[in-house]
Amino acid sequence: VQELFSRDAGNFRPSAIRAFARLINDPNIISFAGGVPSPETFPAAILAEIAAGIIRERKAIALQYGPTRGLPALREEIARICGGRGFTASPDEVIVTTGSQQALDLIAHTFLDPGDIVLVELPTYIGATASFLARSADLAGVVQDEDGLDPRSLREVATRLAAQGRRVKLLYTIPNFQNPSGRLMSQARRPEIVAMALELGFLIIEDDPYGELVYVEDADTTPLRSHDAGCVVYLGSFSKILAPGLRCGFIVAGEAIGRKLEIAKEAADLCSGMLDQSIVEEFCRRGELPAQIARVRAFYRGKRNLTIDALERHFGGVATWTPAGGGLFTMVTLNAPIDTAGHIEDAIANGVAYVPGGPFFVDGSGANTMRLTFAKETDDRLREGIARLAALFTEAEVKL
Amino acid sequence: VQELFSRDAGNFRPSAIRAFARLINDPNIISFAGGVPSPETFPAAILAEIAAGIIRERKAIALQYGPTRGLPALREEIARICGGRGFTASPDEVIVTTGSQQALDLIAHTFLDPGDIVLVELPTYIGATASFLARSADLAGVVQDEDGLDPRSLREVATRLAAQGRRVKLLYTIPNFQNPSGRLMSQARRPEIVAMALELGFLIIEDDPYGELVYVEDADTTPLRSHDAGCVVYLGSFSKILAPGLRCGFIVAGEAIGRKLEIAKEAADLCSGMLDQSIVEEFCRRGELPAQIARVRAFYRGKRNLTIDALERHFGGVATWTPAGGGLFTMVTLNAPIDTAGHIEDAIANGVAYVPGGPFFVDGSGANTMRLTFAKETDDRLREGIARLAALFTEAEVKL
Repeated sequence: VQELFSRDAGNFRPSAIRAFARLINDPNIISFAGGVPSPETFPAAILAEIAAGIIRERKAIALQYGPTRGLPALREEIARICGGRGFTASPDEVIVTTGSQQALDLIAHTFLDPGDIVLVELPTYIGATASFLARSADLAGVVQDEDGLDPRSLREVATRLAAQGRRVKLLYTIPNFQNPSGRLMSQARRPEIVAMALELGFLIIEDDPYGELVYVEDADTTPLRSHDAGCVVYLGSFSKILAPGLRCGFIVAGEAIGRKLEIAKEAADLCSGMLDQSIVEEFCRRGELPAQIARVRAFYRGKRNLTIDALERHFGGVATWTPAGGGLFTMVTLNAPIDTAGHIEDAIANGVAYVPGGPFFVDGSGANTMRLTFAKETDDRLREGIARLAALFTEAEVKL
Repeated sequence: VQELFSRDAGNFRPSAIRAFARLINDPNIISFAGGVPSPETFPAAILAEIAAGIIRERKAIALQYGPTRGLPALREEIARICGGRGFTASPDEVIVTTGSQQALDLIAHTFLDPGDIVLVELPTYIGATASFLARSADLAGVVQDEDGLDPRSLREVATRLAAQGRRVKLLYTIPNFQNPSGRLMSQARRPEIVAMALELGFLIIEDDPYGELVYVEDADTTPLRSHDAGCVVYLGSFSKILAPGLRCGFIVAGEAIGRKLEIAKEAADLCSGMLDQSIVEEFCRRGELPAQIARVRAFYRGKRNLTIDALERHFGGVATWTPAGGGLFTMVTLNAPIDTAGHIEDAIANGVAYVPGGPFFVDGSGANTMRLTFAKETDDRLREGIARLAALFTEAEVKL
């Protein structure tokens, strides 16, 4: 188990965490690991009916090769979804991708040369860093606080690297309920960060898979792209609001960038699955998405509330945690300098699992953190799991 | 139209041909262009029933993220399919891909550095060269004759380039009913080519989307991989025997190569569509594939026979053509030095379309060739279309 979290580049991959999540699929272990949505949120009955109808009635489209940029009717639905999120997108600016991971990989392939710098949050999503590292880019960490990415740190890191002659190409950010931290970037910071991208000449990759999963009243998730369409490439996904097995993500980008990404996508897989796209399009066209998002929010809101309550009850004085006003994760930071990776086997022996936070920090920090997802377990098991974790780390602190 | 076929690298892409195929989707134009299977061959009724059942009963798998290498049960089915094609594959050697195009792109990403040489057939599939060129590889053409890739030309080109200090990394071949030529590589040549790969130290990428689409009795399509598993990476696809909209291809490769490709795939899209994979797996598990392949063969065999008959009737003395004992294409070579790209607009004005052959030849030859697919049109229109093409090029020859 432990070697999955070594800092060896070969294991510094989403597969390590997913392999680990599978390892602990044992029903006797309460799992805060994994990072995948709950199948209970998948609207199977509606999707089954839609899929059968589409295959019978639209086989010449849904079972055939399709346009590289995606099914035109789906691109129109996506443009409307973007409008609902607070920024204008035309269907011409939308490229459907084989999940958001493909979007990240196309961007890495299109924009990055070996040695280019990608600025990433501390912590950040490992699937993105895997794609950037695959193009031999270098990663530079930018500090987060409770309001998300810190613009002062961003300016400091970007200008220092530029002064060293490095090419700072991209800022990769997940502003809404980030994986792994669960943090929400404040609206006040967003225009400032966009202005800095324009001033310092880098592109912002805004990854927004969780923006619709809001559980608190005052969360404003309006994307950075609402402030400037030119320097922000927006990534969205149906994985967390509908179902990831359909592999349906999207990019919103201006014409020049979009044309390059389309060429890369064509070489990558010609087009994304046309049945998947047709199902998602029909689901949206019928107006099912708002009700589905409301159901998903209600499902996770309960689990989030209960997890935060349990953290308050059991972890007070031992750790702090992010409030997780949305998304699937909270990140717990132990007060004591305890390496959470060193306690995974103990935890599993005690019937509970989490993901050590270290691999999410590109600067080697974060050893005393762990990512907890509240997506997977039943309410009782979530409560029990937090209690077990607290006992484990309280004991570890005593032993220090 | 003409600019779609310019030799400018930006247009040297599958999209150019597909954009062109769309341009001539006018029902008044008889089209031998495009290169996509006929929707009439898609078994929609069975697939609709399977899809609905899977979504209802297996949502926690079919709608969820899956393993990067693919659904384990599908990898077992694929291993059995390989056995039926004449070579041994274990499920552990199988990687499911988002169509064969992704396999090509993963291979390009994994094996190619800028300036590396990829040996390709003259002519070859443009989707593959697009992926190789995207990694800044250089392409070197190897001559084909009626028995497929010519081993003498292969040895000559490979040794000449090696003597120049170039790194010859890959041979890309479509041995069975190649796109675009329709040619079948003779069995006699296959072990010789495999031995040459071992001797000269390059890897063979064997792309086999058409091997099951056999229309003549004496065609032996046993893959090159049956002769040596170590130096041959085998690519298969369900696109032509089932439906391309499901985006389900596969790689068969040894452990060391497979591990690298898996890492590249994870960065590319985490996993292929799980609904698509589940549908294909269930279709195979039910034993539907042999009957489906028999239906597809019968469907295209009739169209192929009729197209070859029409070519014999109308093109004698004006051109030669490949026999197309399988697959979706025949390639016509005009006897006179006529550039087929220069006659596309005339052809469209006469209600018929084809794909000029030039873009398929990486050495700049092939201007007097064209690719004809017999997959799309009705029997009457196929006959009428060949007659119109013959009239057009007979007239063009007279005018020379």
